[in-house]
Amino acid sequence: HQKGKVGYEILKNMIDAGYEGKIFPVNPKAQPIEGLECYPDLKSIGQTPDLVIVIVPAKLVPAIMQQCADVGTKSVIIITAGFKETGKEGNALEKQVTRIAGKAGIRIIGPNCLGVIAPANKVNASFGGALPAVGSIGYLSQSGALLTAILDMANANDIGFSKLVSIGNKADVDELDVIEALAEDNQTKVIAGYLESITNGNQFVRQAERISHDKPILLIKSGGTDAGAKAASSHTGSLAGAEAAYESAFERAGIFRCSSIKQQFNYAQAFAYQPLAAGARVAVITNAGGPGIMAADAIERQGLTFAKLTEKTITKLSSKLPPAANLYNPVDVLGDALADRYEFALDVVLDDPNVDIIIILLTPQAMTEPAATAEAIVQMTKERPNKPVLTCFLGAGKIKEGVRILRRGNIPQIDAVEGAVETARVMADYARWRSRPKRVVKLFPVNRRKVENIIDRHLRHGTREVAENESKEILEAYGFVTPKGSIATTAEQAAGIAEQLGFPVVLKIWSPDILHKSDVDGVQIGLSGAKAAKDAFDLMMYRIPKKVPNAHILGVLVQEMCRGGREVILGMKRDPHFGPLMMFGMGGTMVEVLKDVSFYLAPLTGEEAKQMLISTKTYKMLKGVRGQEGVDIDAIAEGLQRLSQLVTEFAQIQELDINPYVVGPEGTTPIAVDARISIEQV
Amino acid sequence: HQKGKVGYEILKNMIDAGYEGKIFPVNPKAQPIEGLECYPDLKSIGQTPDLVIVIVPAKLVPAIMQQCADVGTKSVIIITAGFKETGKEGNALEKQVTRIAGKAGIRIIGPNCLGVIAPANKVNASFGGALPAVGSIGYLSQSGALLTAILDMANANDIGFSKLVSIGNKADVDELDVIEALAEDNQTKVIAGYLESITNGNQFVRQAERISHDKPILLIKSGGTDAGAKAASSHTGSLAGAEAAYESAFERAGIFRCSSIKQQFNYAQAFAYQPLAAGARVAVITNAGGPGIMAADAIERQGLTFAKLTEKTITKLSSKLPPAANLYNPVDVLGDALADRYEFALDVVLDDPNVDIIIILLTPQAMTEPAATAEAIVQMTKERPNKPVLTCFLGAGKIKEGVRILRRGNIPQIDAVEGAVETARVMADYARWRSRPKRVVKLFPVNRRKVENIIDRHLRHGTREVAENESKEILEAYGFVTPKGSIATTAEQAAGIAEQLGFPVVLKIWSPDILHKSDVDGVQIGLSGAKAAKDAFDLMMYRIPKKVPNAHILGVLVQEMCRGGREVILGMKRDPHFGPLMMFGMGGTMVEVLKDVSFYLAPLTGEEAKQMLISTKTYKMLKGVRGQEGVDIDAIAEGLQRLSQLVTEFAQIQELDINPYVVGPEGTTPIAVDARISIEQV
Repeated sequence: HQKGKVGYEILKNMIDAGYEGKIFPVNPKAQPIEGLECYPDLKSIGQTPDLVIVIVPAKLVPAIMQQCADVGTKSVIIITAGFKETGKEGNALEKQVTRIAGKAGIRIIGPNCLGVIAPANKVNASFGGALPAVGSIGYLSQSGALLTAILDMANANDIGFSKLVSIGNKADVDELDVIEALAEDNQTKVIAGYLESITNGNQFVRQAERISHDKPILLIKSGGTDAGAKAASSHTGSLAGAEAAYESAFERAGIFRCSSIKQQFNYAQAFAYQPLAAGARVAVITNAGGPGIMAADAIERQGLTFAKLTEKTITKLSSKLPPAANLYNPVDVLGDALADRYEFALDVVLDDPNVDIIIILLTPQAMTEPAATAEAIVQMTKERPNKPVLTCFLGAGKIKEGVRILRRGNIPQIDAVEGAVETARVMADYARWRSRPKRVVKLFPVNRRKVENIIDRHLRHGTREVAENESKEILEAYGFVTPKGSIATTAEQAAGIAEQLGFPVVLKIWSPDILHKSDVDGVQIGLSGAKAAKDAFDLMMYRIPKKVPNAHILGVLVQEMCRGGREVILGMKRDPHFGPLMMFGMGGTMVEVLKDVSFYLAPLTGEEAKQMLISTKTYKMLKGVRGQEGVDIDAIAEGLQRLSQLVTEFAQIQELDINPYVVGPEGTTPIAVDARISIEQV
Repeated sequence: HQKGKVGYEILKNMIDAGYEGKIFPVNPKAQPIEGLECYPDLKSIGQTPDLVIVIVPAKLVPAIMQQCADVGTKSVIIITAGFKETGKEGNALEKQVTRIAGKAGIRIIGPNCLGVIAPANKVNASFGGALPAVGSIGYLSQSGALLTAILDMANANDIGFSKLVSIGNKADVDELDVIEALAEDNQTKVIAGYLESITNGNQFVRQAERISHDKPILLIKSGGTDAGAKAASSHTGSLAGAEAAYESAFERAGIFRCSSIKQQFNYAQAFAYQPLAAGARVAVITNAGGPGIMAADAIERQGLTFAKLTEKTITKLSSKLPPAANLYNPVDVLGDALADRYEFALDVVLDDPNVDIIIILLTPQAMTEPAATAEAIVQMTKERPNKPVLTCFLGAGKIKEGVRILRRGNIPQIDAVEGAVETARVMADYARWRSRPKRVVKLFPVNRRKVENIIDRHLRHGTREVAENESKEILEAYGFVTPKGSIATTAEQAAGIAEQLGFPVVLKIWSPDILHKSDVDGVQIGLSGAKAAKDAFDLMMYRIPKKVPNAHILGVLVQEMCRGGREVILGMKRDPHFGPLMMFGMGGTMVEVLKDVSFYLAPLTGEEAKQMLISTKTYKMLKGVRGQEGVDIDAIAEGLQRLSQLVTEFAQIQELDINPYVVGPEGTTPIAVDARISIEQV
C-alpha cells in the first residue's frame, strides 16, 4: 500500500472524512494500514460489510464479487476500470460481474467510477478529493474526472452537497436509479448531474417528470451528434437532429439542460437555498449605472419581465435614498452607498407585490462595503425568505470577504451580470413549469383494426415503406381526410379518372422506389383538362425512367387538387431512446430550407400540440397576416394529436410524414395530401 | 483632506503607484499632504503641470479650467460629477467648461469619470484602486463603477493593462479618441472597452475598421432598446431594431461584441498574449473524456472545425502515449497523465499542419500535476510561439498554483470548456476578418440629376413620402426595371390600359394615404380580362373608401403582372448614428412573419451584398431546391449595390423598400414591383 495508489487514497479519504462506522481494509498481503487491521479476504472479517468498495485489478473483480455474495454484502462500488469501456473483452468481464451480482441480489455502482460521497454521513468512498461541505445539492456524474474538478471547485467556494455519485459504466445502477434515490433523500433539494447517455429514455422521462415537480433537475448532457440524423428517409427524420429528442424529453420532464458546470452550479445554488420564484418579474438593486443597464439588457434578452415597482415602493424608496438615486427599476442606490442603503432598498423591494425575483448588483467603489452589505443581505433574507434573492458582486479581491459571507449565508452569488439574470430566468421557468395544467391526452375513436391489418400485411411481405394509397388508408382510419384519386396506367385512364374527379387535378408518379417525387418532376399540379392530364401522364412515363432507370414505376396517381389552404407538415420520427417524436412545421419544399419546425414527444396533450404550433414562426402566418384570412389552428392541433395517438398505438411505425397537410379557414376540414409511413417489426 | 475622500484617494494612488515625476497637491486650505507641499492654486506652483486632475465641486470647475488655461496646461482630467448626467443645469455647466477648454486648446477627459491609469508609466490618476500590473490590454469604459470591478478582478487574477481610461461624460475626449490613442500606443496589443453610446457612428466605423486590422477591438455595448424601431413606417424600419445598426457597424469594423466582462477578458488575454490563429481548426488535449466531449460539442456548436490530425501526428503520439490513450482529436492523455505526457502531446500537436488552435483541458485527478503541467505549457509555448494555445484547467484549489503559472506565463486560462472554445472561435473569426478581400465598392453609371429633381420637388412641397410612380422613376434612374402600367380613374380606362399592357394585369389602389395596400384589399392580382379589370376597379372604388374614409384616393394603378419569379425585399433605413443600413429578406407578406432578413451598412461591396443574401435562410431557396430552378443571385446582389449607391448619394432618403423585388432565373432582369421611399431635408 502506497500513498498515491487509488486503494490507499480511498481508505485515507474514508478515515479523514471521520466515518463513524467500522472500516475493514482487505488485502491478501495483510499489513495494518493507517492503524487499521487488514484482512486477507472478505470472509476473514467475520462480519457482513454494509458496503464493499472494490479497487482490485479488473480480472480479479469477479472473484471479489463472489466473495461479496458469499458474505452477504448487498452494496458494492467498483472503482476499477478496464471493463465495457475498453471493448469486447472488458464487456464480457463486466457481464460476468453483473451476473454474479444479479444472482446474489447485489447492487453495483460502477465499474470505472470515482466512487460515492455523502458528506452528512461522513462517507467519502472516493478518490475524488477531500470531503466537501454538507449541502442540499445531489450530484451524479458519468465522468469521474469531471467530478474531481467539481469537487475541487466546490471545496474552494463553500459549495456543499448532499450526495455525490460517480456512476461510471452504469453496469447496474444507472442515472435514473440515482436520480430516484436523490428524489427520496431528505438532504437533497436539487438534483444535478453530468450525463453522456440515458439508458432507458421512456422511463427516464416518466420518472423525471414526477420528480422534478418536487426537486428541480439540472443536467449537462454532452455528446450530441447529427450523424444519426443523416441516414433518415423522411423530412421529419432529416430535420430531427439527435438532440431534438433530448431537448423534448428534458422539456417534457421539466429538466433544465445546462451548457456548463458554472451555469449548473449557479442554478443549483439558487434552487437549493432560495425560495421558489412566484413569477418572472425581476427587480434589480445596484450601486452603478453600467451594470444596471447590462442587467436590464439581459432581462429583455432572456424574456423575463422588468418589474414595475408600485407607487408605494417608489415613495418609500424616495424617503431615504439620496435625491440623485434612481427609484425605478433598476434601483440605483448610487456609488457611495454603504451597507445600510442596500439594506433599506432590499427591505422595500422585498415588500413590493410586483416583484418576484431580486438581483442585487455591487461594484467595489471607494466607499462600498462589500462585507457589511453581504451581512445585511444574508440577515434580511433569513428573516424574510419570501422571494428569491440573487447577488452579483463584481470584482475579486475587494469583494472576497463579502462573497464568502454570501455563500455561507446561502445567497447564490454569481460573478457575472448575464449569469445572474440567466439564473433568474431558470427560476421563473421552473415556476411556470410547476404550475402548468395537468396533462390530459385525448383519445379519439379510431379504426385500429384496419391499421393493424395494413401494417401486418406489409411486414409479412417484408416491406418497410407503406404504399402511398395504404398510407392514406391508415390516416383515414385515424380520422384524417385525404384527397380523392386513383392510379392510372394509361394516359386515357388518367384522363378518365380526372374527368370523374373534376378539374383541376394533380398527377403524381407512382413508384415504390421514388421517395421524393418532385425531385424527378414526378408531380404536375393544376392540370385543367383531359388533354393536359394525358400529356402530363405521357411526359412522366417518358422522362422519369430516363432519370431513375432502376425505379419500378407502377403508374400515375390522379388526384383531386386541394386549393386555397396553407400547406404545413405533420410528422413523426421514432427516437431510439425516447420513442415517437412529433414534428410540426411549414410545409412544401420550404420546410427543409427554412427549418421552421418544432418537436415534441408523443403522446401529445391538446395544450402541447397547440404549443408546437405556437413555437414556430409559421404560426403567425397561420393566424393570418396583412388582411389574409387565418386557418383553422385547432384543426391542425387535432391532426397532431390524432397522429400522436396513431404512432403511440403502433410501435411499428418508425417514421411518418404528412406533407403537405393542407389547412383552410376555421371550420373547414384539413386534407392530408401526401403521406409517407415507414414501418419495422418490433 | 481626509482619507476616503476622492481627492485624497487619487493623490494617494498617484504616490503609491510610484510616479516618478512631480506631484503638486492644490487646495486653498494649503496644508502639506502625505509629505508633499500643497499649493493654494495652480498659478502658485510656478510651473506648468503636464496634467491637471480636477476634483473640486462642479460649480468651481469652470474657474479651475480658467486657471489651467492661464498656466498653459493642455491636459485635464475632470473627476467631478454633477454635469450633463444630472440634467439641464449640469449640461450648461459642462458646456461652459468645454468652451473655456476649447479656447485654450485644452483636452479634457471626463467629467464624471474615474480617471486614467497607465501602469508602465506608474500613473494612477484614478480612485479605482491599486495600480494594476503592466500588460498589453488597453481598456476604456463609459462606466466608472464597472472599471472598479474590472480593476479588482484584474488585480486578483494577474491580468495586466497598458492603459485604463474612464471616459465619463465624454465632454471632449470620446471613445474614438481613446481608441485611436490606444491604436498608436506601443504597449497596447488589444483594445477593450465598455460603451453605452457611440458619439459619431460613421467616423467610428471608418477608424475602427482601420485600427482593428492591427489590434483587435473587443467591446461591450449595453443599452439596446427597440423603442426607436416601433415608430418606423417601412418594412425595413420595423424589422431593423436599434441593435441592427450596431451589429452591422461592429461587423464592418471587425469589432467583437462581448456579452460579459468575463468573456471580454478571455478574448483580450488570448489576443494580447498569443499569436494570431491561422484558421479555425481546433485540436483538444485532455486528461478526461467528459470535458473532451463537452469541448467537441462546443466546437461543433460554435461552427469551428474539429482538426483532423495527420497520420504522422497519430504515429508520433502512439509512440509514447499509453495504449488506452485516444490518439485522435480530442487527444486523451488519460487520467494518470503527469506533466511530461501533456508536454509530449502538446509538442506533437503543435507540429501538426492541420491544427490552427490548441485547447488544453485538465481536471485535477489523483495523479495530475497542475503546476508542473502549467510550467511545461508555458515553457513550450515560449519556445514555439507559432500557434495560439488556450488552457482550461477545471477546478479551483488544486489548480490554483497552475493557474497562477499559466497567467504569469501569458497563457489564457479560461475556467469553463464552453468559454475556452468560444475564445478559439473569436480568434478564428479574427483570422478570417483580417484576411478578407479589400473592400471595393462598385459605382454604377446612373442618372443622378433626375433623382435630385424628384427629391427637390418633393421637399419643396413638404412631402415626406415620394409618390409611387416617382419612387419608380428614382429606381429607374439607378438602373432598376419596374413594371409597366398607368393610373386609371375610371373602370373603362382601367380596362383600356390593361388591354394595352396585355393580360393578366394587377390593379392597385392609388392613394398617398394608404401605405399598406393589401391591408385594405387594395391589390388585385391575376386579372385576366377586361371585365375582370373593370369589376376589380369598381369594387375597390366602392369598398376602400368605406374602410379608410379619410384617404384621398387618386385612382387605381393598372400594372403588368410579373410572374414566375421569387419575391424578395430590398430595403434601407437610415440609422441616426451609422447612416444607411441596407436590408435584404424574403419578400411578400412573409417578411414580417418569418423575419428572415439580413442587414449591413452601406456602401456595400459586391462581396458584402452577396454575403447579405447568403446569411439568410431564403438564400437556399433562391439557389433552387428540390428540382425547382434557382434565381439570378448576382442580379439581386447587384440590386442591393445599386440601392446602396442611391442611398449613399442621397442623404435625404430616410427609408426605402422595394417589396416585392421579383427575380427570375439566371440571365433575366429582376423587376422592382413596388417601392416606397421617404425623404427628409438634410
